[in-house]
Amino acid sequence: MKKVLVIPDSFKGSLSASEVCDIFKEEIKNIFPDCEIVCAPIADGGEGSADSFLYALGGEKISITAKNPFLEDIDTYYAIIDGGRTAVIELAATAGLNLAEGKKDPLVTSTYGVGQMISDAIQRGCETIIVGLGGSCTNDAFTGAAAAAGAEFFDGAGKSFVPTGGTLQDISRIDFSKLRKLVKNIKITAMCDVDNPLYGTNGAAYVFAPQKGADINAVKLLDDGLRHIADIIKRDTSVSVSDLPGGGAAGGAGAGIHSLFGGELRSGIDVLLDAVDFESAAADADFIFTGEGKLDRQSLGGKAVIGIARRAKPLNVPVIAVVGGVERGLSEIYGEGVTSVFAINRLPEDYALSRRKADKNLSETVGDILRLIKRL
Amino acid sequence: MKKVLVIPDSFKGSLSASEVCDIFKEEIKNIFPDCEIVCAPIADGGEGSADSFLYALGGEKISITAKNPFLEDIDTYYAIIDGGRTAVIELAATAGLNLAEGKKDPLVTSTYGVGQMISDAIQRGCETIIVGLGGSCTNDAFTGAAAAAGAEFFDGAGKSFVPTGGTLQDISRIDFSKLRKLVKNIKITAMCDVDNPLYGTNGAAYVFAPQKGADINAVKLLDDGLRHIADIIKRDTSVSVSDLPGGGAAGGAGAGIHSLFGGELRSGIDVLLDAVDFESAAADADFIFTGEGKLDRQSLGGKAVIGIARRAKPLNVPVIAVVGGVERGLSEIYGEGVTSVFAINRLPEDYALSRRKADKNLSETVGDILRLIKRL
Repeated sequence: MKKVLVIPDSFKGSLSASEVCDIFKEEIKNIFPDCEIVCAPIADGGEGSADSFLYALGGEKISITAKNPFLEDIDTYYAIIDGGRTAVIELAATAGLNLAEGKKDPLVTSTYGVGQMISDAIQRGCETIIVGLGGSCTNDAFTGAAAAAGAEFFDGAGKSFVPTGGTLQDISRIDFSKLRKLVKNIKITAMCDVDNPLYGTNGAAYVFAPQKGADINAVKLLDDGLRHIADIIKRDTSVSVSDLPGGGAAGGAGAGIHSLFGGELRSGIDVLLDAVDFESAAADADFIFTGEGKLDRQSLGGKAVIGIARRAKPLNVPVIAVVGGVERGLSEIYGEGVTSVFAINRLPEDYALSRRKADKNLSETVGDILRLIKRL
Repeated sequence: MKKVLVIPDSFKGSLSASEVCDIFKEEIKNIFPDCEIVCAPIADGGEGSADSFLYALGGEKISITAKNPFLEDIDTYYAIIDGGRTAVIELAATAGLNLAEGKKDPLVTSTYGVGQMISDAIQRGCETIIVGLGGSCTNDAFTGAAAAAGAEFFDGAGKSFVPTGGTLQDISRIDFSKLRKLVKNIKITAMCDVDNPLYGTNGAAYVFAPQKGADINAVKLLDDGLRHIADIIKRDTSVSVSDLPGGGAAGGAGAGIHSLFGGELRSGIDVLLDAVDFESAAADADFIFTGEGKLDRQSLGGKAVIGIARRAKPLNVPVIAVVGGVERGLSEIYGEGVTSVFAINRLPEDYALSRRKADKNLSETVGDILRLIKRL
């Protein structure tokens, strides 16, 4: 074993993806001291995504003072990787649900701070901006971020304002000129792992706003606002976001980043795998190790283990999944490119007990897999 | 993978050793259709031992009518293997604890039927007799079996009788002549997995008789009887069984089989491994698969997984253990010759739940191990 890729998701409730990486690294170094290890904790666009890229690729944490969901200054950071060319920004860093604890209200919260981070990264010379959507407390269709990055929103009286979820309906005109200039030649990619459309019963407001603090009246108001901004955008830019899969991500940030910033929505795992140049790295690897908390029929949707297996399959590199649990009878995974799945439960213990031993269970299971490989 | 040995113990409480073998066989045939499989369910001398040898080596079930512990006729069987040369007889077949259910009393129960089976096998031409000790309801020091095979026991008045646990003390002389003639040139090996001596606080009566129905007075009486027979044997044959490790197995059958029948006591696993000619079979095997219900510090004593690993180590054949559970931090096993241990718990479930899914858990885990091996 001369080279391996280690690309695990978190074991939710017990180990973060980077903790899983650390355990793999340690066992591999013990048993194959000369093995080259390419290691990337899977990020889904939510909290921890910037750190995942830093873990995988190295880079710099950029400290910044930016607006929180209530437009108050806070200290936060984003990542610059790839020799300064690429920024990784989490929406949750300034518009995360945890920042609204105790006062959740998607009618008034704003993604303004995200736009500040994007502007800052572009001013520092980044040519590619990765924005992790996920964990938001907002429903402003990314208008706050657009405003921070130079867009101007005007109401019916011609007055400029920064929209929030509750005032999207007041937008009558948008001036895109400064924003267009800023993002010209900038590649913007959103990590987006939901398919929900911008509005409607399956849209951002109906599906996600209740957990952000909206009651049913607020949900209706937010949904109307999202329909309205879709109409304005269609009118002024000819871009239709009504049916955009993922348009409803992060309170409509999916639609906003696509239409206002010209960004592309992609699944988090694919963005990460591209950033680590997965195909090149895997081509000469002996194994790909991945894993997640639980591998079940839902996993076939393709975010962690299956997402990696699908991209590894044409390369003919074996994929070993080490998991907290695997649903019985899940034989489809082998057709998707997974070679073997090993569950870490060293003893028959229920989750309440085993979750606290996940680190030891994982390291022993990985050790046993590696010892088998070594004997072959 | 051209040839493998599969030598698992039972997963106590969920799968018998032969069921474990069946699952391994099925998975191996699926994934490596051309692989030669040598398969032997581990036997410890207790119930199922004769079937284990038949499973591993083929042979014939010999039906026989013999005396149960209360000297009533029952229909039972033993195994003849090795082209008719070797018999495998379970003490439990006629003197098992299950045959005394509801009337357990080691003062009166007898191993007489075991002696009948031994005689029968010798009369059929067997030159080697393997006797599985274990699961007995008797405490007669194998005197019942000896009587059935021709030994004569006399009391102080010169009257011949068949001793039981409660009448061992009445033996004043033994006539070995017919028994000696019967077992001349016959190799007798007992499968014996306890080290307890014949008598004393760590002996057969004190340690095992209570679970056979003896109260404290009975235990004392039985222990006195065992001391007495040891003295008689010492006096008449110069063989001392006082300190024989395993002399206390199966109510003193260990001592009796050694001194009265000239037999050898060996661990069950070693007897089985010799019978399948382990060293030759393993020498050109790619893998040895073994397993047991739980691998823990006690397992280091060496009956199942560790016993096999120790014999495989000098042959440099990798040993893969597939287990119901493995104690955390049990790193000594790797030094003993175990390559890797995989636990079958596909989900974090406690034993009450998982034991009923052991078959599926095992087959899926074995499948994943084999698919990994196939990719190497």
